[in-house]
Amino acid sequence: MKYAEMTAVELKNISREETLVVLPIAAVEQHGPHMPTATDTIICTAVAEQVEQNLKESVLLLPTLWLGASQHHLRWGATLTSRVENYETLLCEICESLLDDGFRRVLILNGHGGNIGPMQISLRRLQVHYRNCQLMTASYWSIAEQEIASLMEGECKTVGHACEAETSLVLHLRPELVRESKIENFIDYAPDMIDGVYLCNDMYQRTQKGATGRPDLASAEKGEQMFSAIVKRVTEVIATLSKNALSE
Amino acid sequence: MKYAEMTAVELKNISREETLVVLPIAAVEQHGPHMPTATDTIICTAVAEQVEQNLKESVLLLPTLWLGASQHHLRWGATLTSRVENYETLLCEICESLLDDGFRRVLILNGHGGNIGPMQISLRRLQVHYRNCQLMTASYWSIAEQEIASLMEGECKTVGHACEAETSLVLHLRPELVRESKIENFIDYAPDMIDGVYLCNDMYQRTQKGATGRPDLASAEKGEQMFSAIVKRVTEVIATLSKNALSE
Amino acid sequence: MKYAEMTAVELKNISREETLVVLPIAAVEQHGPHMPTATDTIICTAVAEQVEQNLKESVLLLPTLWLGASQHHLRWGATLTSRVENYETLLCEICESLLDDGFRRVLILNGHGGNIGPMQISLRRLQVHYRNCQLMTASYWSIAEQEIASLMEGECKTVGHACEAETSLVLHLRPELVRESKIENFIDYAPDMIDGVYLCNDMYQRTQKGATGRPDLASAEKGEQMFSAIVKRVTEVIATLSKNALSE
Amino acid sequence: MKYAEMTAVELKNISREETLVVLPIAAVEQHGPHMPTATDTIICTAVAEQVEQNLKESVLLLPTLWLGASQHHLRWGATLTSRVENYETLLCEICESLLDDGFRRVLILNGHGGNIGPMQISLRRLQVHYRNCQLMTASYWSIAEQEIASLMEGECKTVGHACEAETSLVLHLRPELVRESKIENFIDYAPDMIDGVYLCNDMYQRTQKGATGRPDLASAEKGEQMFSAIVKRVTEVIATLSKNALSE
Amino acid sequence: MKYAEMTAVELKNISREETLVVLPIAAVEQHGPHMPTATDTIICTAVAEQVEQNLKESVLLLPTLWLGASQHHLRWGATLTSRVENYETLLCEICESLLDDGFRRVLILNGHGGNIGPMQISLRRLQVHYRNCQLMTASYWSIAEQEIASLMEGECKTVGHACEAETSLVLHLRPELVRESKIENFIDYAPDMIDGVYLCNDMYQRTQKGATGRPDLASAEKGEQMFSAIVKRVTEVIATLSKNALSE
Amino acid sequence: MKYAEMTAVELKNISREETLVVLPIAAVEQHGPHMPTATDTIICTAVAEQVEQNLKESVLLLPTLWLGASQHHLRWGATLTSRVENYETLLCEICESLLDDGFRRVLILNGHGGNIGPMQISLRRLQVHYRNCQLMTASYWSIAEQEIASLMEGECKTVGHACEAETSLVLHLRPELVRESKIENFIDYAPDMIDGVYLCNDMYQRTQKGATGRPDLASAEKGEQMFSAIVKRVTEVIATLSKNALSE
Repeated sequence: MKYAEMTAVELKNISREETLVVLPIAAVEQHGPHMPTATDTIICTAVAEQVEQNLKESVLLLPTLWLGASQHHLRWGATLTSRVENYETLLCEICESLLDDGFRRVLILNGHGGNIGPMQISLRRLQVHYRNCQLMTASYWSIAEQEIASLMEGECKTVGHACEAETSLVLHLRPELVRESKIENFIDYAPDMIDGVYLCNDMYQRTQKGATGRPDLASAEKGEQMFSAIVKRVTEVIATLSKNALSE
Repeated sequence: MKYAEMTAVELKNISREETLVVLPIAAVEQHGPHMPTATDTIICTAVAEQVEQNLKESVLLLPTLWLGASQHHLRWGATLTSRVENYETLLCEICESLLDDGFRRVLILNGHGGNIGPMQISLRRLQVHYRNCQLMTASYWSIAEQEIASLMEGECKTVGHACEAETSLVLHLRPELVRESKIENFIDYAPDMIDGVYLCNDMYQRTQKGATGRPDLASAEKGEQMFSAIVKRVTEVIATLSKNALSE
Repeated sequence: MKYAEMTAVELKNISREETLVVLPIAAVEQHGPHMPTATDTIICTAVAEQVEQNLKESVLLLPTLWLGASQHHLRWGATLTSRVENYETLLCEICESLLDDGFRRVLILNGHGGNIGPMQISLRRLQVHYRNCQLMTASYWSIAEQEIASLMEGECKTVGHACEAETSLVLHLRPELVRESKIENFIDYAPDMIDGVYLCNDMYQRTQKGATGRPDLASAEKGEQMFSAIVKRVTEVIATLSKNALSE
Repeated sequence: MKYAEMTAVELKNISREETLVVLPIAAVEQHGPHMPTATDTIICTAVAEQVEQNLKESVLLLPTLWLGASQHHLRWGATLTSRVENYETLLCEICESLLDDGFRRVLILNGHGGNIGPMQISLRRLQVHYRNCQLMTASYWSIAEQEIASLMEGECKTVGHACEAETSLVLHLRPELVRESKIENFIDYAPDMIDGVYLCNDMYQRTQKGATGRPDLASAEKGEQMFSAIVKRVTEVIATLSKNALSE
Repeated sequence: MKYAEMTAVELKNISREETLVVLPIAAVEQHGPHMPTATDTIICTAVAEQVEQNLKESVLLLPTLWLGASQHHLRWGATLTSRVENYETLLCEICESLLDDGFRRVLILNGHGGNIGPMQISLRRLQVHYRNCQLMTASYWSIAEQEIASLMEGECKTVGHACEAETSLVLHLRPELVRESKIENFIDYAPDMIDGVYLCNDMYQRTQKGATGRPDLASAEKGEQMFSAIVKRVTEVIATLSKNALSE
Repeated sequence: MKYAEMTAVELKNISREETLVVLPIAAVEQHGPHMPTATDTIICTAVAEQVEQNLKESVLLLPTLWLGASQHHLRWGATLTSRVENYETLLCEICESLLDDGFRRVLILNGHGGNIGPMQISLRRLQVHYRNCQLMTASYWSIAEQEIASLMEGECKTVGHACEAETSLVLHLRPELVRESKIENFIDYAPDMIDGVYLCNDMYQRTQKGATGRPDLASAEKGEQMFSAIVKRVTEVIATLSKNALSE
């Protein structure tokens, strides 16, 4: 079910207990020299829409919030962002609209690394007020971690920024938006976690050109396989979430 | 030019002085018994995208912010909203991302009546910090007021909520989303301005079923004519905005 | 009834259902070379007090909040202001004091153009919490639009800033405060709305000397006529507001 | 000099270094069974205006902010208030309007006990940003402490709430607003400071009828003497403040 | 009883009506050339812990909040602080944790002058929501004012900053932390209250070296006597607080 | 070096480039039936102080902020907390005090799981303003992950809440505070991450008695070994942090 396409009367009639509302969130931010700023939004939306197709009865899909918490990209320009604390508030308020309307299962499905912290915190801010609801977040790559890793050829097996995975996925989903001539090996970037310490540097400090990983190993075929694997796994996991018992 | 489809390098290279950045904003909220919640988003996005097609050289189009300031619809359910004061902040922050990246002409192009107040205030909040920039807002119907009025057959000649105009436009743009069997004459609704006094009632108080006006007079043909007329007029007006002199 | 002059016991005894509480708001801000900074406060207070005289039984008048949302005048100096978002909060809190004390009809009566947006938004912020109350705003000129227009001789028929109307009104109410030798024709100012687009410029950008319109056409006689007409019309309109049915 | 009565040009021409700007703040709140809600505003305004008459060359007087921090009176009704933290912000913003316009000496002159904490904090919030300005607050009774005490006949020698002092002062300034038949001996109220411990109780807990002290000992004559003594002392003290050296 | 050393089960079992919860607050901020930054924290903690030893049955002691409202020391460096308005919020939230857990008597016991305003305001912010609780604040020196004064040899009889009293107390409590060779007579500092007017200057403006008073008259013996006297008096006063009747 | 024990002059003289400032943060919150509320604070402080002993020249240690982000424990009572968004602000402000004083390397060393999100976000809020500083966070267990895991005998190899690790560590550090008779096997608790999905439940939902893991396998000996291993590893890692190059 697609929230945006339904009427108020139809939305009123669906089960608050059994329906899982999915809010996809992503970003519009610089993605290196070869990828469009909407990269995260394109991927996350495609995953979410396909999952909804697979679970039409139990999933209620919201439109993708393309705005992300992207302050750490600002120095590269080409980045739209909210302050991170206000992004938390924004997510809280969208969820409150749903929870106050009676829905009891909400999943924020994320496609941008910078959103992980604020999205988890937004649910913590809400949880003390909505204790009988199941509030959840996940990034598509945290659900499909193994599926993605098994398809990555480069040394990095997780989804980075404008990397082998993201580039492959967009080559599959929107090939005309990838500037293939600009692709390089961007594996030489600084991690933000060393020896268990989080180093809070921005992407201007951590990368040479605003991208990470091995987009030079990307391909549309790999993207297609990866997309299928992600959708399959996210579908499986989400299917169980709307069947879990709710707290009273 | 579409911001979301461009790379950071491409965005860096376009003129900050001459380019007009357009941020479409709308809503996902109850729209009576016959219209989808995304009505405002569908219309505003279609207008904005067509205008961008007409003015590819001078307009930089952002994706539509589908979230609106819709607290006054909450009692009907099926409404996603931000608190009105936080909506101002949200708009400020998206604009700041652009202004701090050097852009000097920003237009918020609106498709939801409830956004008018907060969008104007958000610019007032910004203006004291960005005095050499041209900050602008408009609703598509404020620009194309006469064009719309001349096509309305019902007694109300302006765009209401799920009314003759909106219903016609969605019948043209996404006909499968209009539940035609649910259409009624909704002209019997309470105005929010009487004798120069603004009465702050919500839509639960002002309408019988969450809709206003004469959708029973709507048609896809009228929608097509209206859409063309709106796009034409908005194109004309926006074309001049990117040629106006900027303050120093 | 004047709130400020009554005791708590007296205030406790008046009807919460039938009484209309009026909060006048205005500004203390630069008003061009010829008008005192309190221009808006002087006019709005005089109107409000005269209306209260006419409707002693049904109207409960608060003192005028002289502080306005005047950030757009700051570059001219001589301006006291609150940030526009905090001004909303301020109005909310004054109204909350009344609403939590049981009053159910509140009208913000405005005398400063810059307050229109924030005063309407403040009521929208409140309305979701006080749904059985009638929250209203109006500017004296929106109520008495026709009466004012019919007395204006200059090309502009609406109330501007330090214009023909305001100058006439202060010439009538506080003639010693008008510096007549400094009066000029200020009709050459930039509008903030062109072709349906709101241009968010400040008064430093929009005017030559911080004033608009035709104060050179002002006179005390015109002020007297205008004041009478405004008071008469505002009295009529307000008289009906305290008789309208309240929502439950 | 009265800010509200001057033009922007006149205000621009007065000395930023030598002028002391005075912002009177007070309250509109319940004042027991015999006193009007505007008691504090009436007294503080009268003092401030008389002082300005005495020091026309060096003092620039603002209009009185009648809104106070009066949450502790809410349970008695008949009280207008801002939340205490927002009241701090409000005072900050009025002062910022002045300081950003170049004024370097600002005195908040207070007439309501509940404002003391927030007014001092508001200056502390400002001071880190305006270190070369002299930011000051005082209540009229802290300046004229001895003068007031020497005229009090009751056991309490300081200004309380609707007490001997306030009642006398309003009997002098606005005798028609005192309901003399309602006056009682209200000396039996609970202090908020015992053995060096501040007990944060509201006025509903601390008083029987919302008033303190000995208004039964009040008289217009005492009010006249007290008013003269206060004005004389405040004039003396303020006269020196605009001559003190400013930090660089 | 020490909150930090107890288990949740034990804390659940103690009386909410009879127990007085004590939250010590202090500062870590510059304390002149001879005293450690934790001076206020050392003293306040020692007093609080000794009082708890004396009143084990009725007092529940929290750990000391070492962070204070110390913006006025920032220009001397070596100062940790919260913005004053956020410090209020911080105190509110710690108290809310207690009040929502059912405790009805809370005393903030303070050891830093800069905290007095915000701690009182934080309770005013809370009081409107917790009207049946007894919310209290005190500085150790406001309770033991006379005891301290009687032991001071210098001209100033009250506790200042790094002064005779504080230096003596730390010489008694943590002698190794006092740099005795750096001690001077710092009596030549500017007061913040003159003629009833509060002058909001920071410590960089008010002192030569960030200290006040007569630490040159300090001694460990005086510190020991003073500490005993303070503990004795604070014990006496607090003992009565947990026996006072609570409002309903 | 211990910040709290130093004078302002001493603090001024240490190198801003080379010194690593360490802010330990923890919690005072319910820790099941057998552990004191200060468990996290006791452990984190002990680790931090021992590390400072090992690195006296390069580390500047602040006192431990015992307040944590513990809203998810509130339903168990015995929990002091700040709202999570305000906790971010609190950490920002303590860090700002240091950064504005010139320090360029700050590490927040954490001992409470609930702080991880807000502490990382607080640095992201700061980083856009202090781009030439190295802002870092770590939990002691993220640095010493392997050392801890190798000593855990239960099925869970990571630090939980009042678990085998925490209980062992407090048995070593403050044995008198562990109620050994209340220890149980608490391994039957609900995880907050399943299949890559974060489930935002509070500890009342996730545990039977507010504790997790295998405290029944804890011992003082294990605690001693673990403490030594943690301190050794944290010392090693921190030693390198103050030698890394700083961005300009």
